[in-house]
Amino acid sequence: MTLKRKKISVIGGGFTGATAAFLVAQKELADVVLVDVPQAENATKGKALDMYEASPVQGFDASIFGTSNYEDTADSDIVLITAGIARKPGMSRDDLVQINQGIMKIVSKEIAKYSPNATVIVLTNPVDAMTYTVFKETGFPKNRVIGQSGVLDTARFRAFVAEELNVSVKDITGFVLGGHGDTMVPLTRYSFAGGIPLESLIEAQRLEEIVNRTRTGGAEIVNLLGNGSAYYAPAAALVEMAEAIIKDQKRILPSIAYLEGEYGYDAIYLGVPTLLGAGGIEKIYELELTATEKEALDESAAAVKAVMDVLT
Amino acid sequence: MTLKRKKISVIGGGFTGATAAFLVAQKELADVVLVDVPQAENATKGKALDMYEASPVQGFDASIFGTSNYEDTADSDIVLITAGIARKPGMSRDDLVQINQGIMKIVSKEIAKYSPNATVIVLTNPVDAMTYTVFKETGFPKNRVIGQSGVLDTARFRAFVAEELNVSVKDITGFVLGGHGDTMVPLTRYSFAGGIPLESLIEAQRLEEIVNRTRTGGAEIVNLLGNGSAYYAPAAALVEMAEAIIKDQKRILPSIAYLEGEYGYDAIYLGVPTLLGAGGIEKIYELELTATEKEALDESAAAVKAVMDVLT
Amino acid sequence: MTLKRKKISVIGGGFTGATAAFLVAQKELADVVLVDVPQAENATKGKALDMYEASPVQGFDASIFGTSNYEDTADSDIVLITAGIARKPGMSRDDLVQINQGIMKIVSKEIAKYSPNATVIVLTNPVDAMTYTVFKETGFPKNRVIGQSGVLDTARFRAFVAEELNVSVKDITGFVLGGHGDTMVPLTRYSFAGGIPLESLIEAQRLEEIVNRTRTGGAEIVNLLGNGSAYYAPAAALVEMAEAIIKDQKRILPSIAYLEGEYGYDAIYLGVPTLLGAGGIEKIYELELTATEKEALDESAAAVKAVMDVLT
Amino acid sequence: MTLKRKKISVIGGGFTGATAAFLVAQKELADVVLVDVPQAENATKGKALDMYEASPVQGFDASIFGTSNYEDTADSDIVLITAGIARKPGMSRDDLVQINQGIMKIVSKEIAKYSPNATVIVLTNPVDAMTYTVFKETGFPKNRVIGQSGVLDTARFRAFVAEELNVSVKDITGFVLGGHGDTMVPLTRYSFAGGIPLESLIEAQRLEEIVNRTRTGGAEIVNLLGNGSAYYAPAAALVEMAEAIIKDQKRILPSIAYLEGEYGYDAIYLGVPTLLGAGGIEKIYELELTATEKEALDESAAAVKAVMDVLT
Repeated sequence: MTLKRKKISVIGGGFTGATAAFLVAQKELADVVLVDVPQAENATKGKALDMYEASPVQGFDASIFGTSNYEDTADSDIVLITAGIARKPGMSRDDLVQINQGIMKIVSKEIAKYSPNATVIVLTNPVDAMTYTVFKETGFPKNRVIGQSGVLDTARFRAFVAEELNVSVKDITGFVLGGHGDTMVPLTRYSFAGGIPLESLIEAQRLEEIVNRTRTGGAEIVNLLGNGSAYYAPAAALVEMAEAIIKDQKRILPSIAYLEGEYGYDAIYLGVPTLLGAGGIEKIYELELTATEKEALDESAAAVKAVMDVLT
Repeated sequence: MTLKRKKISVIGGGFTGATAAFLVAQKELADVVLVDVPQAENATKGKALDMYEASPVQGFDASIFGTSNYEDTADSDIVLITAGIARKPGMSRDDLVQINQGIMKIVSKEIAKYSPNATVIVLTNPVDAMTYTVFKETGFPKNRVIGQSGVLDTARFRAFVAEELNVSVKDITGFVLGGHGDTMVPLTRYSFAGGIPLESLIEAQRLEEIVNRTRTGGAEIVNLLGNGSAYYAPAAALVEMAEAIIKDQKRILPSIAYLEGEYGYDAIYLGVPTLLGAGGIEKIYELELTATEKEALDESAAAVKAVMDVLT
Repeated sequence: MTLKRKKISVIGGGFTGATAAFLVAQKELADVVLVDVPQAENATKGKALDMYEASPVQGFDASIFGTSNYEDTADSDIVLITAGIARKPGMSRDDLVQINQGIMKIVSKEIAKYSPNATVIVLTNPVDAMTYTVFKETGFPKNRVIGQSGVLDTARFRAFVAEELNVSVKDITGFVLGGHGDTMVPLTRYSFAGGIPLESLIEAQRLEEIVNRTRTGGAEIVNLLGNGSAYYAPAAALVEMAEAIIKDQKRILPSIAYLEGEYGYDAIYLGVPTLLGAGGIEKIYELELTATEKEALDESAAAVKAVMDVLT
Repeated sequence: MTLKRKKISVIGGGFTGATAAFLVAQKELADVVLVDVPQAENATKGKALDMYEASPVQGFDASIFGTSNYEDTADSDIVLITAGIARKPGMSRDDLVQINQGIMKIVSKEIAKYSPNATVIVLTNPVDAMTYTVFKETGFPKNRVIGQSGVLDTARFRAFVAEELNVSVKDITGFVLGGHGDTMVPLTRYSFAGGIPLESLIEAQRLEEIVNRTRTGGAEIVNLLGNGSAYYAPAAALVEMAEAIIKDQKRILPSIAYLEGEYGYDAIYLGVPTLLGAGGIEKIYELELTATEKEALDESAAAVKAVMDVLT
């Protein structure tokens, strides 16, 4: 039947995964399966049940189900990957990469087995390399394996600018290219408040500070929380991408996409403006960059490549 | 200016408080101040910032601010109290009551000082006695000190029934009186699916099981989570009550209300059907009860009284 | 591709059809095709374009297209029929029936040709007989040909009760059986305010007046407008049914359903409580009726039969 | 009481006014009073009642009331003016101006009398001159008398661009200055798709066509409808401005604002980017214009002045 409910599986039942599951259900985008490892199965079931119990009050219809069994994810339309560990004190970056790569391999195998037609969006860090791993391990076409970073980076930038100008977040647009976090390439000349160039509203030095705050936005939250990392904004970013795809909205959103020649790069996942619709990444937009921007993007690509070299 | 933004303060920055803050902001009900103790101030700021960073993506305009300073709550329209500890292994009920009573006293003093015109909704357990404490300590009129339990109990009941019948949660109504949890008095004869009496759709024994599951709905989540208690549905319940009041919606929702003669009780906070609007509890509805229901309600009131006796 | 956009066609571009199209688009339920006769094609295109121009401001993604060519409706998931004429002064009821039957025949042929898998919801009056006509002429299975009347009748009843009690419309439930309008059979014993029986909140005589006002709710609007009939509430009712089906929500809503033995009637379309999901009418709920209610329903059924006898 | 419901009055119960009333209610922005002349009182009451009857189904709480008595508008927070006639065949522009000016005078007197603290948003054409008339006649401060045109012009531009590129309307931004319609000054260099300059996505000639279509967007709908003018998009535009003000959202939206030196003009209402919040127009943004743009804006201002000269 063509009208059957959509299904979105969220891999990883931590704060980000749980929040993403809740946001999907709230929007009635799909039924939700929240998956975590067997040791966390009961906790995952508990979170899912608690969310479902909120549904009569919040007024949404969606089943939300917690499990550790990938069979329950069968025939998902979209899979959101939030699984993985965060870097711990004393852990080298390479250790982190290899551990999360191992997790991606396991997860990819299960996705490919149970949901061969799904579109996959990856949030796990380092996200460029992890998206590449999922691409390789699932064997899915490149348009159906996507990484999230630019929606979140842009959201942070927009929030900071809105606060700075004391205006609505609805009217701020931002634009980033490249990798996530430190190697993010912000295009402030393409960033606006109600269509007005930010550069004419905020002094250059202050704007630079806001860009830098955006760059380290993840770390700012980590430092404040003391014990954990951001999950509200990352989950919201993930779900906006999922909504664009499941509703075939043809949104123009930044994605981590597999490049084959675009912007002069090859065989690398990098953040670029994309068109998101039923086909996943339906198009990559190539912008003309200034020399400075291209140089920054090169650095960003080099940083991604350096992480990819650690992959086994 | 009459059009200034509304303000809702949420006391307690744990999972329930944070989720409530997020739901308030999502609905653009008000600007939100999330308050916790000084030791948790950074974490509270981190959560608030993370939520605010989600706002450009989720498309809501609300400032969300974390603090440990009650001055920041000044002139709140509504205060939601989620602060308090959960009962730990080996802790007697009386210990729990006294610790949370102590917290309510501190919180009440600050609310009365900074937001003398606020309406307060209490979620902290044991909720009947804690609401009574806030009523006494703030000195606020009874219509502006309200406890939450029935919206949550009903939500759980509705979710379980919807699952049982495989129908939309939107079409299930439920009805409870009395205390929260074990001493809840469900009125299944006033519970319907699309207007059809549940008693004609679900066998008596199965319906009894669902009622019992509702009664222990909080414990079910505690047992599943292993380490923590429900927060999505409790937060949603709290926010539905806040919305009814801040938008003056005149909702008929179950509240823990201060009774002065209603249902034959006096000087006790107990769950009853109420009208929630700009005036807080604007009306208490008195239903005719069957002898069995009245008996159950008496037991529920006695249980509340027993807890109140522990109050100092 | 499983994720392609849904499609809803609305037949009849008058006020009700146009409003229904707008509400569908607002909710992002589907892309919308608004169809009217060739003479009205430009006006239909104009309305559709005006709605589409509202979409950037209202924030919804849906194409809305006006046409007189049924080819444009191809592969609709749902078709809403609002086409037909209203009774004019001096026109006999039988004339009305025959004219609208003629329109239903034409429309049904086009729907069957271009959207053989669609679910059809009929609003055209006299709705019971017109739904029957569409059922016969499309040859679609009975679960996929549905009439609207009870959602609207109930909505009016709920609005009047909410106004009477000065409470939120969200907390009022109502229940009707039988035909639309005059022959509507209200079950006030199944009607509630926040779960409280209306009979205990409103005096019997006043409740009777409200029921009668509901019965003549369509005429009340006709008399006020002077030149036209209601369209906001009818369109909203139609779209709620469409939403239940297109999102597979399993709503329990009153529908005009084809009865084959239910409630003791056969081969007649009559208003009964139904389960609406991806399968259209997935279930008919049979309630035990009092003798008085059964008698009223018999009269209602007889009235529907009388109209059906006029069909050619 | 600080939490009392907000109130928005809509003057003019035609299609635009009625649609605006419905959109306000749907968003639960305020209770709504829809006002028209005594001859249309019943029809106005009928429309309002029909909308209210939709509220249980659409799930919003707002009273909607039709009247011809301005007493009913007392203490409105916002007043939306849609009253006025459209230009008819054979009617000179000056006749139109004078007739609508007469209507504005009557309406302004009533608003000033019953809602002296309201913010007023004018939609009646020619909108620049009519807004000026309301400003003069109410005696309200300039920040509380605002005209709508740029939100609608931009919405049309965004819709046309989204259709051209087959992308979401959510990701298109546009920018206009100056008068409404023919004398609109589009700033395509400040118009983007997902942050990407439109000029790099659409050929110059095609973009020029889209701009011209926007300029004549009102006439396009008039021609299609044959008998009437656009109302969905104009109403949506009006309500977006009202929402920004009533929720104090600090939106950056184009408004027709009273200029006293900004952009080099004085004592004229002209379309400029503004900050809309609880204070009405809280700020006017001055952009640096190119020589061509400034010239176009001069022409636009001259056209507005020419109409103002007709005012008596």
